[in-house]
Amino acid sequence: MVHNFNAGPSILPATVFEQAAAAIHDFNGTGLSILETGHRTPVFEAVMQEALDLSKELMHLSDSKEVMFLHGGATTQFFQVPMNFLPDNGKAVYLDGGTWGSKAAGEARLYGDANVIASSKDRNYTYIPKGYQIPPDAAYFHLTTNNTVEGTQMWEFPDTNVPVVADMSSDILSRQMDFNRFDFIYAGAQKNIGAAGVCMVVIDKDLLGRTCRKVPGMMDYRKHIENGSMLNTPPVFAVYVCLLTLRWLKELGGVAAIEALNRQKATLLYETLDALPVFIPTVDPADRSHMNAVFVMEDPALEKEFLQLCKAEGMVGIKGHRSVGGFRVSMYNALPLDSVRTLTDLMKHFAQKH
Amino acid sequence: MVHNFNAGPSILPATVFEQAAAAIHDFNGTGLSILETGHRTPVFEAVMQEALDLSKELMHLSDSKEVMFLHGGATTQFFQVPMNFLPDNGKAVYLDGGTWGSKAAGEARLYGDANVIASSKDRNYTYIPKGYQIPPDAAYFHLTTNNTVEGTQMWEFPDTNVPVVADMSSDILSRQMDFNRFDFIYAGAQKNIGAAGVCMVVIDKDLLGRTCRKVPGMMDYRKHIENGSMLNTPPVFAVYVCLLTLRWLKELGGVAAIEALNRQKATLLYETLDALPVFIPTVDPADRSHMNAVFVMEDPALEKEFLQLCKAEGMVGIKGHRSVGGFRVSMYNALPLDSVRTLTDLMKHFAQKH
Repeated sequence: MVHNFNAGPSILPATVFEQAAAAIHDFNGTGLSILETGHRTPVFEAVMQEALDLSKELMHLSDSKEVMFLHGGATTQFFQVPMNFLPDNGKAVYLDGGTWGSKAAGEARLYGDANVIASSKDRNYTYIPKGYQIPPDAAYFHLTTNNTVEGTQMWEFPDTNVPVVADMSSDILSRQMDFNRFDFIYAGAQKNIGAAGVCMVVIDKDLLGRTCRKVPGMMDYRKHIENGSMLNTPPVFAVYVCLLTLRWLKELGGVAAIEALNRQKATLLYETLDALPVFIPTVDPADRSHMNAVFVMEDPALEKEFLQLCKAEGMVGIKGHRSVGGFRVSMYNALPLDSVRTLTDLMKHFAQKH
Repeated sequence: MVHNFNAGPSILPATVFEQAAAAIHDFNGTGLSILETGHRTPVFEAVMQEALDLSKELMHLSDSKEVMFLHGGATTQFFQVPMNFLPDNGKAVYLDGGTWGSKAAGEARLYGDANVIASSKDRNYTYIPKGYQIPPDAAYFHLTTNNTVEGTQMWEFPDTNVPVVADMSSDILSRQMDFNRFDFIYAGAQKNIGAAGVCMVVIDKDLLGRTCRKVPGMMDYRKHIENGSMLNTPPVFAVYVCLLTLRWLKELGGVAAIEALNRQKATLLYETLDALPVFIPTVDPADRSHMNAVFVMEDPALEKEFLQLCKAEGMVGIKGHRSVGGFRVSMYNALPLDSVRTLTDLMKHFAQKH
């Protein structure tokens, strides 16, 4: 038994693996593998449509929202967003809550003024910046809802009339929120949506109308919407894995149900960490992420031993990001509560020993 | 038994399907699915490295070439190439041999002057333009080696000192050629390389030095090379399917072996078409593609009947592209000779009947 705490690509439901493997042998009884199925076939067009529809349904999106599945991962959105929405003489504002938000701001500077409005870099991104003002003339305000590397998560969002762009790569569909309050959402699929190689984008039609310069076809959200996410050959298999995962989530009871499970997992882990002085969570309690828990050890000399113990017990992916060190335990939607329980039991055992 | 003549995504070797499905259950004995395996794990880093190395080996690339696996498909290269190599006041020249080359030229015009140097649009792209001059001051010369939609293929290439950029999406690795004579090659994987969702790029280091403007990180070939095609999360599974397909090709005897098989298939099909007056190949004989054969029927009223007959016999993907009509038979590397034989037998039977 392997317990997979990988930060992404990460664990997906077992039923998704089964169905995905079956479709590689024979896709929907066509006698063809999904890997050799044309994207402009009714059988794949149905996959894409259902994936788009299910995304809207699970996020309770209003009619003013459009969903796309795009190539290139969230990192492509770092520049595609300003390329479309930040005019040469315009200004965008960024919340610098971690590694990825900081990179996003860097890419935006190629197109216009990208101001970091607040940052938690002073304390290694161990908290979410608060108490900032969003200038009313900004082209948009960019934030990261969950910082995968540092283990912080935004639990409150500012009120503003400026369009809000949210990178939700590591916590989309993991908790209930009013997805409609965001004008633009993007999320690499390889955590809570499906397999690596595709990025989900949600856009408000009003923002779409603010496209400010001529952009290449593949960078033009309007063209992707017009073509139902099939402007060119989509990443067929990755989209199918998303569909299977979205179906699983719906079956489970949707975002409300998974939120409850995610809260259970995170509560168990953080309560264990707080109770055992040998472990030190690095993030301010109010800003702790339910997706990625980051901690170090009181005695750094013990880290290697704990890591080896975890490995011996079949736990993978808990080594911290190279920029932070220590440990990172990722608890995405598909991670069973049992995996967290096995880990916390091991932690208690380890703490008793030391 | 299904005979898959899809134009792409298209047939892959049966052994690739088997191994890909097995890796979804358990990737290399790790106890994890490849879909939940981190890209920065030794087991996946080895996949990426072997895929890059095998690509170089199969194309006999010199040390001045670098290979990348990128997101976004060939359509992203339509703009990424001029974004990197066409200066604002510079000029690139394009060979307009079909739908895709024409689109590539259109995207380049966003960045500089993109002149169509020769075109076969006058006769619906049923031949390869010849006898043109490449201006020596061009930033690069862009061509499409095989026109998927129209069924033409370039069998000769012009001598020039100008950097040559080649879209080889639909015939890469299908025939022997001096790949080193091209300064830039790109190819969507979903025909001869592997699964949809990844694009192979080969670049000469000399061209790399001619990068002419500051570009976003994800659009910067130098950054992708520095990061071994893992600048961000790569399309893990699609890259793995490429590796399996490249291994299969090497096992078979490499490009020389597959070229011989591809010639057999194309010869059988074209000889059959030429011998049966009921079928009319649309392309000039000298420019016929060994990958995509396009034809119509002498009596268009019979097309529906033939299509239905093919369908009843388990042949899929032979309907012509909507812009051309008639039929298109794609015969990529993994298509068995037997599939072409079954189709040509049916053609003879059909011709006798009418």
